[in-house]
Amino acid sequence: MASVRIREAEEGDCGQILRLIRELAEYEKLSDQVQISEEALRADGFGENPLYRCLVADLPPAPGDTQGPRVVGYGLYYFIYSTWKGRTVYLEDIYVTPEYRGQGIGSKIIRRVAQVALDQGCSQFRLAVLDWNQRAMALYKALGAQDLTEAEGWHAFTFDGEAMRKLAGK
Amino acid sequence: MASVRIREAEEGDCGQILRLIRELAEYEKLSDQVQISEEALRADGFGENPLYRCLVADLPPAPGDTQGPRVVGYGLYYFIYSTWKGRTVYLEDIYVTPEYRGQGIGSKIIRRVAQVALDQGCSQFRLAVLDWNQRAMALYKALGAQDLTEAEGWHAFTFDGEAMRKLAGK
Repeated sequence: MASVRIREAEEGDCGQILRLIRELAEYEKLSDQVQISEEALRADGFGENPLYRCLVADLPPAPGDTQGPRVVGYGLYYFIYSTWKGRTVYLEDIYVTPEYRGQGIGSKIIRRVAQVALDQGCSQFRLAVLDWNQRAMALYKALGAQDLTEAEGWHAFTFDGEAMRKLAGK
Repeated sequence: MASVRIREAEEGDCGQILRLIRELAEYEKLSDQVQISEEALRADGFGENPLYRCLVADLPPAPGDTQGPRVVGYGLYYFIYSTWKGRTVYLEDIYVTPEYRGQGIGSKIIRRVAQVALDQGCSQFRLAVLDWNQRAMALYKALGAQDLTEAEGWHAFTFDGEAMRKLAGK
């Protein structure tokens, strides 16, 4: 099997990243929630003040293939702020397409994000996972993560568009 | 009772914000986790690339009081990125000191954050709450929030310092 490379995403990867964002949302059984477009991913990640950073796992093109490298996994992250511990990295999405699982690509992406976090002076590295995704939960725990929802009782809440507009009185 | 004002925090508020961060952590029974300093809050929130923004609720000084306004609540937030819905506001902390609760100060802070979120083109507004904090959960739900941990099963995970360094191979 061809060797997979982990590298920083470029703007031209956004189409392939969006394909994987949709695959991940399908895997999470929440694909109706994907409203993002390739144009938004390009503008939001590769403009003057990027809102996120992304690593991709890609395969070199096969001989005669003119389409360029094929992206088979990604990790999309950004920086958040803890009032307890300061600058923190948050891994919003991590995904490897099914036929490339079991090769350690996900772990490689996580390790690379941890390196970025340390280089940027972060004191912790957070992410969220669905409770039925036992495979992912087991991986993160094996790598040393703590389940804060289990240990401390944290619940994630959201105000979606309509609720947010009501709150804002608009 | 003197009227409370909601305004954007200034660098000089950081000492009072830190006092409330500690009060909140005590209330959450997790005060051993607070490692932040006033200097870090100043540098991280009021430098060239602020890592967070903060609203404060303050009381005008009493006649003859030379200490300036007293901060009785705060909401600290920043922007994150959803691969489903794009730019999103995240309210990291919201707190009102006990003697000023029940006056709607918390709701006012939340409404102001929702206004900022809309002005900044955010499609949603997220926060996290501890499962035993039924008062907060009930307030957020009454204001239109959805509990994503309950509805979809999201768990928050963290790699703390030592685990993160191991991941990064350092």
